Amino acid sequence: MGQSEPSLRRQACATWADCPEAEKDKKLSVRPETPLLDSVQTPVDLRKLPKEKLQQLADELREEMISAVSVTGGHFGAGLGVVELTVALHYVFNTPDDRLIWDVGHQAYPHKILTGRRDRIRTIRQGGGLSPFTKRGESDYDPFGAGHSSTSISAALGMAVANKMADKPGKAIAVIGDGAMSAGMAYEAMNNAEQAGNRLVVILNDNDMSIAPAVGGLSAYLAKIVSSHTFLSLRGFGKKIIEMLPRPLADRARQAEEYARGMAAGGGTLFDELGFYYVGPIDGHNMEHLLPVLENVRDAIDGPILVHVVTEKGHGHPFAEPNQEKYHAVPQFDVVTGERKKSTPKAPTYTNVFADALIKESEKDDKICAITAAMPSGTGLNKYGDRFPDRTFDVGIAEQHAVTFAAGLATEGYKPFVAIYSTFLQRAYDQIVHDVAVQKLPVRFAIDRAGLVGADGPTHAGSFDVTYLASLPNMVVMAAADEAELMHMVATAASIDDRPSAVRYPRGEGLGVELPDEGKVLEIGKGRIVKKGSKVAILSLGARLGEALKAAEDLESRGLSTTVADARFAKPVDDQLIRDLAATHDVLITLEENAIGGFGAHVMDFLAEEGILDGGSLKVRAMKLPDQFQDHGKPEQMYEDAGLNASGIVATILKTLGHNDYGQALGDSAAAQKP
Amino acid sequence: MGQSEPSLRRQACATWADCPEAEKDKKLSVRPETPLLDSVQTPVDLRKLPKEKLQQLADELREEMISAVSVTGGHFGAGLGVVELTVALHYVFNTPDDRLIWDVGHQAYPHKILTGRRDRIRTIRQGGGLSPFTKRGESDYDPFGAGHSSTSISAALGMAVANKMADKPGKAIAVIGDGAMSAGMAYEAMNNAEQAGNRLVVILNDNDMSIAPAVGGLSAYLAKIVSSHTFLSLRGFGKKIIEMLPRPLADRARQAEEYARGMAAGGGTLFDELGFYYVGPIDGHNMEHLLPVLENVRDAIDGPILVHVVTEKGHGHPFAEPNQEKYHAVPQFDVVTGERKKSTPKAPTYTNVFADALIKESEKDDKICAITAAMPSGTGLNKYGDRFPDRTFDVGIAEQHAVTFAAGLATEGYKPFVAIYSTFLQRAYDQIVHDVAVQKLPVRFAIDRAGLVGADGPTHAGSFDVTYLASLPNMVVMAAADEAELMHMVATAASIDDRPSAVRYPRGEGLGVELPDEGKVLEIGKGRIVKKGSKVAILSLGARLGEALKAAEDLESRGLSTTVADARFAKPVDDQLIRDLAATHDVLITLEENAIGGFGAHVMDFLAEEGILDGGSLKVRAMKLPDQFQDHGKPEQMYEDAGLNASGIVATILKTLGHNDYGQALGDSAAAQKP
Repeated sequence: MGQSEPSLRRQACATWADCPEAEKDKKLSVRPETPLLDSVQTPVDLRKLPKEKLQQLADELREEMISAVSVTGGHFGAGLGVVELTVALHYVFNTPDDRLIWDVGHQAYPHKILTGRRDRIRTIRQGGGLSPFTKRGESDYDPFGAGHSSTSISAALGMAVANKMADKPGKAIAVIGDGAMSAGMAYEAMNNAEQAGNRLVVILNDNDMSIAPAVGGLSAYLAKIVSSHTFLSLRGFGKKIIEMLPRPLADRARQAEEYARGMAAGGGTLFDELGFYYVGPIDGHNMEHLLPVLENVRDAIDGPILVHVVTEKGHGHPFAEPNQEKYHAVPQFDVVTGERKKSTPKAPTYTNVFADALIKESEKDDKICAITAAMPSGTGLNKYGDRFPDRTFDVGIAEQHAVTFAAGLATEGYKPFVAIYSTFLQRAYDQIVHDVAVQKLPVRFAIDRAGLVGADGPTHAGSFDVTYLASLPNMVVMAAADEAELMHMVATAASIDDRPSAVRYPRGEGLGVELPDEGKVLEIGKGRIVKKGSKVAILSLGARLGEALKAAEDLESRGLSTTVADARFAKPVDDQLIRDLAATHDVLITLEENAIGGFGAHVMDFLAEEGILDGGSLKVRAMKLPDQFQDHGKPEQMYEDAGLNASGIVATILKTLGHNDYGQALGDSAAAQKP
Repeated sequence: MGQSEPSLRRQACATWADCPEAEKDKKLSVRPETPLLDSVQTPVDLRKLPKEKLQQLADELREEMISAVSVTGGHFGAGLGVVELTVALHYVFNTPDDRLIWDVGHQAYPHKILTGRRDRIRTIRQGGGLSPFTKRGESDYDPFGAGHSSTSISAALGMAVANKMADKPGKAIAVIGDGAMSAGMAYEAMNNAEQAGNRLVVILNDNDMSIAPAVGGLSAYLAKIVSSHTFLSLRGFGKKIIEMLPRPLADRARQAEEYARGMAAGGGTLFDELGFYYVGPIDGHNMEHLLPVLENVRDAIDGPILVHVVTEKGHGHPFAEPNQEKYHAVPQFDVVTGERKKSTPKAPTYTNVFADALIKESEKDDKICAITAAMPSGTGLNKYGDRFPDRTFDVGIAEQHAVTFAAGLATEGYKPFVAIYSTFLQRAYDQIVHDVAVQKLPVRFAIDRAGLVGADGPTHAGSFDVTYLASLPNMVVMAAADEAELMHMVATAASIDDRPSAVRYPRGEGLGVELPDEGKVLEIGKGRIVKKGSKVAILSLGARLGEALKAAEDLESRGLSTTVADARFAKPVDDQLIRDLAATHDVLITLEENAIGGFGAHVMDFLAEEGILDGGSLKVRAMKLPDQFQDHGKPEQMYEDAGLNASGIVATILKTLGHNDYGQALGDSAAAQKP
């Protein structure tokens, strides 16, 4: 594995220097020559090509991918790994009537190029451009949107069963990576797959590198199958066996079964035991192996069938990358030099500050440990793991297990930090309720990517965590206003020993504030006044504080004296601070990068309950994310659209004050938050 | 399997008539004679007994169980099935230093009796009494609380890894049923188990009946192991093999491994493939098989180990029950006649009304189908399945899969109703967000057991669904005020074709209102005025409406003219209704059986945003569940404690009006909701 097939048009070069001159020339043309690909607008065209041309098509598709991603940045290795598979699937199956579902969807760039979206492929990840994942509505060839892993088999099963109920012939094909197979959801689906019969096909795309090194027993098991069995010999004579088989096999069920068994790694795999016909492993870069196997699978009368395809992530990429996880998604790079185009960071990322802060706390307290669900680099726990390998746990794509595993650690006096992105933590919501909060166990949640996330779009936005966490009894919920605050909150979470706590922080770089040597433990449920004024009070939770301060400047320039406070805690809220702000200002605005039902709701509920809203003169508003999923785009534009930047805050406050005569001011911003 | 061992003191009789006279006499004494059990206060006493006495102890424990549950009602079959296993585990392992974790916890009644809680076992499920599940804080022998299934392996793994990090010898033993193995979470944990080494032991309790017929590939696989392999022969010579083995095996790793393999059903099970040493299947009612196997497992130096134990749910119960799922938890029954003590229901249950309503809709629309996650009877889908077997899907304990499977069905034009209890739907939260709401797919959620649930306690309360659903863009969220409303809302959900919708309804019986022939489609986002008044407005969401009406009567008698409105929709809220109520009353109270961040928050946010709270004279309060997990108890008491009954509502309103001089009135209720 991992070796390019000789039939590939181009060998990968490890570095620019290693490249033959002819290759360099080719790379210099940002738009590669792709005569065959140019003739394929949709899979209908593809299916008219003779089989012998398909490898050339795959090669051109790969060139186009590399060229396009050099412009757009984005998920990359996964797509390059499935170029041949994408071509073969669309060739063999009758898409879109047969439903092709790409798990996660980040490997779907070649699929998008082949399904009528090539002209927009360079707009991927840009506001108004193509989604970085599959997306219903973007194309009939995307029957199911994705972004989170491990959903494809369930969705495909729903479609297959729908076809069965409607007595329609169509199949549903789920393509899922070996890493995604570590999620319980995939197992639940496989455990239910039998009801779909031959309408369900699962392609297990087993590549050398998922986002992080694959974890757990299943991973070892797959490696065992691949290393010890028929894969290598397939290269030699597997092709012959396959081509000897008659097709279609509709009337030859027994042969089909024997064929499947014969290809299997020993006749009784885990997948067989869950009710699948297992076929594999197959070399996923060899069109001559892929096509006949998929044709047999298509025509089989029994099922469901699982095809184990072995691919190499990043296959054919001109510049091999040593860092697997970074390779998963890349920023824009220069197609000539292979260098990444990245603006120099002005400040450390929240992710890095979190990792450093946790390392500092862990140096003082040997009970602290850390858990990630297949995101060591994304969460900073790779750094933590380098320092404390024995206290770092990567459980794979298994958020549910991660949280309850942490609960188990907490019962024994350990201090687990569960570092999971806001959006992925949703998958462990019941475990947070049932195993952590009900039992009041001091599990600490480090919630990265809270709020809007820019180019990754709505499936990855962390819009709900304040709402779903702060409604739980026993929880402490913090949000960091800047990177120094994050350090304090990590220290605070480490110190909270009698109940669960959570710290949320946004994607990307901090504000560049000075960092203390170490975090200090904050008083629970106490906010702070950052700027004192008298007419308008902005009570901000989290990292929109900077925008609140900018808004305050603007308001002051309009003669509106403005207080800005940092709530620090969404739960418990700071009763005294809220009372004081309400008593001494005309307007009180809460501000958070979270949906309805979160911090603003808690403040408002407190105000109502205390009678502070009864017939007084206070005007209160809750600024939050709008009640809609926002498409991917540039962060600045997304904040503008959400009304959560300085001008949106100003506009909301002016509107609240009825200052429509500030005319120009309100007109400045189209982003006044609407009811 | 399923046959009692001759060594059992008592044979089960199918009916009272079948029972020998001597048996009848024994049953007549509600408190059985249990001389050996009387001598065992804790597992320490147990471990002093000679092995030969353990079966007698198990027999007495079973008698005590039957007697106790006849008083308390509750989960029953599961506990009877693990009597021998419970005795053997506490005998062999050094509890509580070795951590014994019962998955779900409903099979832990014998465990509770043996661990110092026998004197309170007849208080189980009663307010202030023992929890019906395991519970930290109730005993050192309950290292992890439960209620939802499939958490035990993750928790045990956390404890085992903690011991490993601390270099302590203790083991963690998870006992998990075959049904619970269908949940992805269990798989995630197994996939990570290797890191625990021999500190982790998983007992797979494979019984003939889980709550519902076991579902899926895994279930068939387990049946295959049991039916085709060494189980029967074990009865004959397995014991000898085991006793020939030297113990401890610490220095004989190879022998231990061969032993494990020799016991396995063919040398390569699914569990082996996930990294476990598989041992089994073992007859779980035969102490002479259980003890030596568990001793070997305890002393093995390799691991993790999975012991496959075959038991019969309800083993030894005097009155065999044909209905498996009903048998899972029983109301109180008469120990003499076997008849259940159940008060005659006054009105149909919401569950039944839901099932009938869905059947009616499905008769008109062949695209409607229904999905349950291992709760066909609990959700009413058994009834639906009798009528529409081809449109009913039981996916097993697999809520995540259930939701995304439904999303797949919806993409193909089907109209899936996902019927899952509020508390269990938490496990599919991410799927609701990512697969349903982001894609705006018209999946319908039928949410039973929303709100407080009485005897099952905090792990089963449905306290959060309005909060976690109504914060999602694109969702329609309804709550039924009575059983006729539920019919309308089922019809409404069936008609909503362009986005997801949810209907929540409480546990238990409806109000006994007249039912229409069929549900009518409600206007989305429109509430209704039920009673008109002028001073106080109660805007109720869901089934507390009856209490609101009672409260209104009380208020009227105090001269406070009261409007009662039924919001019907938590999302979208009824803008015009809220405006009208706010404009024409002094006090506006929202009422819901849900935590903070839900309906009340949405109403309050609307009022603030519209400027209705700006300096007016309106007093607004949100009544909701208190910010704490409420222990199990009688529903009436729980509502009283939560302040969500008529007297609580009256007290809150009087307090809001500052009518402290109503003295007596406020004094009547200790339940005035506190801030």
